[in-house]
Amino acid sequence: MQQHHEIKDIVPITPTAAMKAAWHGGRAKCLQRLIRLDMPVPTTVALCFETVRAIADGQHRDVTAFLEPFDKDALLSVRPSSEHADWGGPGAILNIGMNNARHAELSRTVGETAATTLYLRFIQAYAVHVARLDPDAFYLPDEPDAVALAGALAAYEDEAEEPFPQDIAEQLSGVLRSMARAWNGTSARLLRQAKGAPADAGLGLVIQAMALGVGPGESGAGVIQFVDDQTGAPQVTGRYLSQSQGRDALNADSAAIYLARDSRGQSLQERAPEAFDDLVRMGDLSRQRLREEMQIEFVLEDGRIAILDAIRLPRASRATVTVAVALAQDGIISKAEALMRIEPATLSELLHRQIAPNAPRNVVARGIGASPGAASGKVVFSAAAAQAAQARGEKCVLVRRETGPEDIRGMHAADAVVTERGGITSHAAVIGRGLGLPCVVGASDLTVQEGERRILCAGSILKEGDVIAVDGSTGDIIVGDVPMIEAGLDDSVTTLLTWADEMRDIDIRANADTAEEALRSAGFSADGIGLCRTEHMFFEAERLVVMREMIFADSAEDRRAVLDRLLPMQRADFEQLFTIMKGLPVCVRLLDPPLHEFLPQDRRGLRELASALDLPVKEVESRIEALSEYNPMLGMRGVRLGITVPEIYDMQARAILEAAIAVGNISPEIMIPLISAKREVELVKKRVDAVAAEVRTETGVDVDYSLGVMVETPRAALRSGEIVQNAEFLSFGTNDLTQMTYGLSRDDAGRFMSAYVQKGVYPEDPFHRLDSDGVGELLQLGAERGRAARPDVKLSICGEHGADPEAIRMCRAAGFDYVSCSPFRVPGARLAAAQIAIEDQLTTR
Amino acid sequence: MQQHHEIKDIVPITPTAAMKAAWHGGRAKCLQRLIRLDMPVPTTVALCFETVRAIADGQHRDVTAFLEPFDKDALLSVRPSSEHADWGGPGAILNIGMNNARHAELSRTVGETAATTLYLRFIQAYAVHVARLDPDAFYLPDEPDAVALAGALAAYEDEAEEPFPQDIAEQLSGVLRSMARAWNGTSARLLRQAKGAPADAGLGLVIQAMALGVGPGESGAGVIQFVDDQTGAPQVTGRYLSQSQGRDALNADSAAIYLARDSRGQSLQERAPEAFDDLVRMGDLSRQRLREEMQIEFVLEDGRIAILDAIRLPRASRATVTVAVALAQDGIISKAEALMRIEPATLSELLHRQIAPNAPRNVVARGIGASPGAASGKVVFSAAAAQAAQARGEKCVLVRRETGPEDIRGMHAADAVVTERGGITSHAAVIGRGLGLPCVVGASDLTVQEGERRILCAGSILKEGDVIAVDGSTGDIIVGDVPMIEAGLDDSVTTLLTWADEMRDIDIRANADTAEEALRSAGFSADGIGLCRTEHMFFEAERLVVMREMIFADSAEDRRAVLDRLLPMQRADFEQLFTIMKGLPVCVRLLDPPLHEFLPQDRRGLRELASALDLPVKEVESRIEALSEYNPMLGMRGVRLGITVPEIYDMQARAILEAAIAVGNISPEIMIPLISAKREVELVKKRVDAVAAEVRTETGVDVDYSLGVMVETPRAALRSGEIVQNAEFLSFGTNDLTQMTYGLSRDDAGRFMSAYVQKGVYPEDPFHRLDSDGVGELLQLGAERGRAARPDVKLSICGEHGADPEAIRMCRAAGFDYVSCSPFRVPGARLAAAQIAIEDQLTTR
Repeated sequence: MQQHHEIKDIVPITPTAAMKAAWHGGRAKCLQRLIRLDMPVPTTVALCFETVRAIADGQHRDVTAFLEPFDKDALLSVRPSSEHADWGGPGAILNIGMNNARHAELSRTVGETAATTLYLRFIQAYAVHVARLDPDAFYLPDEPDAVALAGALAAYEDEAEEPFPQDIAEQLSGVLRSMARAWNGTSARLLRQAKGAPADAGLGLVIQAMALGVGPGESGAGVIQFVDDQTGAPQVTGRYLSQSQGRDALNADSAAIYLARDSRGQSLQERAPEAFDDLVRMGDLSRQRLREEMQIEFVLEDGRIAILDAIRLPRASRATVTVAVALAQDGIISKAEALMRIEPATLSELLHRQIAPNAPRNVVARGIGASPGAASGKVVFSAAAAQAAQARGEKCVLVRRETGPEDIRGMHAADAVVTERGGITSHAAVIGRGLGLPCVVGASDLTVQEGERRILCAGSILKEGDVIAVDGSTGDIIVGDVPMIEAGLDDSVTTLLTWADEMRDIDIRANADTAEEALRSAGFSADGIGLCRTEHMFFEAERLVVMREMIFADSAEDRRAVLDRLLPMQRADFEQLFTIMKGLPVCVRLLDPPLHEFLPQDRRGLRELASALDLPVKEVESRIEALSEYNPMLGMRGVRLGITVPEIYDMQARAILEAAIAVGNISPEIMIPLISAKREVELVKKRVDAVAAEVRTETGVDVDYSLGVMVETPRAALRSGEIVQNAEFLSFGTNDLTQMTYGLSRDDAGRFMSAYVQKGVYPEDPFHRLDSDGVGELLQLGAERGRAARPDVKLSICGEHGADPEAIRMCRAAGFDYVSCSPFRVPGARLAAAQIAIEDQLTTR
Repeated sequence: MQQHHEIKDIVPITPTAAMKAAWHGGRAKCLQRLIRLDMPVPTTVALCFETVRAIADGQHRDVTAFLEPFDKDALLSVRPSSEHADWGGPGAILNIGMNNARHAELSRTVGETAATTLYLRFIQAYAVHVARLDPDAFYLPDEPDAVALAGALAAYEDEAEEPFPQDIAEQLSGVLRSMARAWNGTSARLLRQAKGAPADAGLGLVIQAMALGVGPGESGAGVIQFVDDQTGAPQVTGRYLSQSQGRDALNADSAAIYLARDSRGQSLQERAPEAFDDLVRMGDLSRQRLREEMQIEFVLEDGRIAILDAIRLPRASRATVTVAVALAQDGIISKAEALMRIEPATLSELLHRQIAPNAPRNVVARGIGASPGAASGKVVFSAAAAQAAQARGEKCVLVRRETGPEDIRGMHAADAVVTERGGITSHAAVIGRGLGLPCVVGASDLTVQEGERRILCAGSILKEGDVIAVDGSTGDIIVGDVPMIEAGLDDSVTTLLTWADEMRDIDIRANADTAEEALRSAGFSADGIGLCRTEHMFFEAERLVVMREMIFADSAEDRRAVLDRLLPMQRADFEQLFTIMKGLPVCVRLLDPPLHEFLPQDRRGLRELASALDLPVKEVESRIEALSEYNPMLGMRGVRLGITVPEIYDMQARAILEAAIAVGNISPEIMIPLISAKREVELVKKRVDAVAAEVRTETGVDVDYSLGVMVETPRAALRSGEIVQNAEFLSFGTNDLTQMTYGLSRDDAGRFMSAYVQKGVYPEDPFHRLDSDGVGELLQLGAERGRAARPDVKLSICGEHGADPEAIRMCRAAGFDYVSCSPFRVPGARLAAAQIAIEDQLTTR
């Protein structure tokens, strides 16, 4: 292959060399920064991506030029330098240049054992990684003596059928080629692509003169950092090991000492106080000037410090926030930059208990992590069993083939939920997220036999009462208990979110159906409730009975009589909600699900219902059957129910308005679901306005309510221009809109979604990440047409996508007033909204 | 109310008077035409809509001016004149002006009995319609003598509390007011709106001097027409009654005679040959000049003809076509006009047996007429019973709660199908239309108890074996047998359709799944097959077993092995289809329905399947359950199946290509269903192309196939621009597209659709009439974007809307290549397409 332009083979790293992370990798760039700060970095050169590619292709064999910048007798190390630290790369190779002559010489200067150790290590690394010989033949001996060395050299010659190379150029050439090629291996490629690297991501290499770490005086190697990587709290930490190289000090069984003086034994601070002080000073300097918490790799050579490398300190989520906030509070970075440094998903992690990072996981099955957080408890198979466990004070995990409305009380009682079927927006997932309950769905490795009260999985059987742990973030289902980390918003997070609120310019509301969820929403500083699903209010045992009576009522009058009994309950629900939200807006969606969801599914429930209604079982059964539907998602639900059985919406409208009057100073928003035609809105509006007029006459109070539409069908989006004639707001229900735009049921998609995403049919599960091309276009069309016809129409989305940064970006760009998401995702959405506003300011500046 | 402009109160009808159907009504306009033809029409004046409105509002009471054009001693009639004849109107009132003085005078000129009869009749009409007195008090006496007359006048005075008015102006004023007001009555309004009249449709009135029809010489009244109103065959027909008025001759019990000489007794031709010849001549003249077959009302006064009125002859569907074709063949109207005169739906009626128009109907229930035609037979409740009945040579009607794929063989065997549930595009409806089988769905008045083998309806019970008749056009379900009219395309229809094919500029294809349907499509001159649903090929008993084995196969290899057995069957199907269609294009859709549709639904089928597969019932049951879906419409079907279980499409592609080679000279079109993303097309295309390459290698023959996409999801329509990169054609499946755009399952919509249409929520069932606003916009967007990205992409629709004239109009305007509909609707679609092309020529001329 002809090369397209002259390659600048090597760049000795100096303060002024032209060096970019995108050409030479992040490590090279970082080393240049350290050199600019006058840190004692040994001579280093960088090979750019092009050069390394040429080496991998076998088109660049002559390394003479690479050796020029170094002392004749220097040993060298080679380290990978990819564009992003977490894209990985081959391991470092140290002590290049060791050969019989250098061994003899070093035996004199640093001692024979040290010299032999260096040589043996290099032979091992070279044999395994460069010559690709059998690793078993090159173990490191207990006693690094002449016999061992001779053995290693002989083993090399046996296996490689040639003597161990003595020429540094040949050695370096081999090392560079092997590292360049390792970058192109399949597993390396998959690994970095999983971290978001592009297919053509390049590798740079850094060649550095070795600071030996072995020899006379205080010599050794260590790693130092200045905050705790779990909490982010300031604290000098790290390890140092005399007469060692690289990251040896971090090996669990090494005799390494701590750095700062404390009660745990000897420290570097005591052994070499000046070097320690210098290191702390350098750490502070790097924090100030690199604007980041670093972890620094250093060597002492006879007491002199050499800085070999520094990386951005790897840290847990909590520390990420603490560090960013501290950097901003110290004036090192701006608040905006602190906000930009935190992934919104990180906040969601902090809000939930997590399995301790290093805890062993006996994973028996993996599903879709549908509601983050972790919990453990005894397996139960029914809502009743979950409630019984709660009553006994036992933790439990509710395991079901799938969940339905009847399981809701059981979900309230359980500590986690697992379902065999369903996807990211299945019933279990949606309710789980609402409750902040860890939830794994679509765990198709499991066969849940609810009747037999057992789970079959990969040859083993789990029975009721067995303890399992559930990781709702990863989807892991684990046998037995595991240690957990507790959750909570600490001061740093609170501070960060305050800054986010200052920056963002779109409201974030929460989807909340119950007082509990409303309290949570308020706790997370949501700007109101964007979606209150009233149906969940009907699943409490007492109300369910009344609801069923209503469904079985034979006439509008009977129905109204039953609904009159539900009215005070609904009114009380809304009063509670309005009181909790303290005047913030609350958008209540009128009843949405098909009525059959409120009916029992099993024989026992059927018999109970028959006896409650004083009807023959046969009749109850046939009426339930008559209500059943082929495609309930596309059936008699939402406004279709509201128009066919208008008494239900009448009752709900009255409950909302009366509650608003009781609480006072509330402007409730009433939302009609599943609209597909303008006239539907007209008809409901007429009745709601009539109810409002009645309430006004009865109470003398005029409630300032607004009526709007949930846009869930493609047709509602397309016809929004005429729909807004009767609607003061449009709230896009992106779950259902996605289902209908794709012709894809969220409950059934689980079966093929993973195959689809794997094959790249969909770039991502569209229920997880808003499909900007299709659903997004409908969203934008709907918003444009709605606003054109009614400039003051309020626009929002209230689906599961509400917290997705891309969705927020799109909504903000389209001039939406707010997004609404589950309470636990509100903090992440507040942050994401701030980031989008900041980005926008940066690009339009 | 102030009148907005000077009302020209009356217009005496003369050849040159300014008279328009839109101002004075169709009757006034027609009378003017007769006058222009010099026909002997008595003096007539017309009152325009405005005047009649003013009369109804009580703002116009003085009728003096109306009387001016008439002789002092003329009796008058008043007839309604609405814009369209079939919008109805109040009945005519005759003999206005009769009073004691006129009675005495007429007694002298025409005889006392005749004069008394006229007076009595007028008193009766006036009392009932104008004075609104009790009709029972004004029966017509057997003996019209002085006693009876005195009694009638006394009865009037008793009831009205005033004497019978003697002043002609007072009489006329009352008649006009009562007729004007009757037009505004609720039932009159509903009746005409049902016929398509606008809410503000006006009524004109026609006042005419009476030609008495009683008196000396040959006097009487009659009605004459010149073709048979059932067949349209030329034949003078009608009735004449001496000494009568109006349409008395048509009363069943009158002594009226026939007009033309034949074997049925005396005729007008014999009694008054000159008058008869004149009438025939006038009939011919009116046909030539009014360019229509007319029915003429005439009076003989002492042998002289008076023409009172003429209307467009009311006629049956068959006669409509015959008359139009004959008019065009005689050069009276153009072919284009003949085409424009026939409603496309009329042709569909002619293709099916009909219940005789006047047969009594003992209707027990009414559903949705989902597949036109009528049939009767014994009630059966299962496919097996239907097949058994067929085997015995008995006609039967299959009655089911709903039908599924397992009923298809039963539907083939039955003479009609009734389902309790489902809508216009439910399974039963779609299959019924395909088979040309009369079908009524959504007959929710019935309760079908399949287990008990009986139907509960409105208090009565129908049992297996009872005979019922089904009218698939009206939705009537009738107890017992009824007389039927047989179906068939006669010469006139064939001629008309030949003309249509000359005019139209868009192809009409048929949806045909079987050889039988393909034969029918070819018989109806379809331009090819637009949709061959391959799944219907798998429901034959022998294949169903293999299909189920395939579904239960554990690996891709097992699946392939089973599919190898299905391959020759599928290939044979396609060979048959290709042979029948003789080189016309055939578009084959790859497998679409979810696999669970092929599995048994009942215990017995389950046990049979278990024993066929040699598996425990429990296991079969649990695997069937695992395949079940919440919303099958939105689940694992169509291309999702094709991608997840690719062996099925491989087999089908091979069967299509091998069949094309076997038949020769065939360019098959292969269509992928349920596409929602570009990559789906890419993946299937890759495999189909690979199969084609294999077939080419094996056979040495290169089949010229094309691959395209069925656009059924809103997303596919929105993203058609990228989808066409891999698709040579886009065929819009408007059934599913409608379902998804509305979020409305066609199977479940039946429950509320009628309420929705009644309340005007939807102007019409969108599965019946294409929704041009929502679904139509997606169609147009999809077509535009597809064509912009690939100018040669072939565009079509293949849903149930394919025969809907509005859909054809939209498709033609958007540059579509063809529409495809069920075979029986092809003739109507050919006609509709011609009409649209003609209209377009007229408007763009």
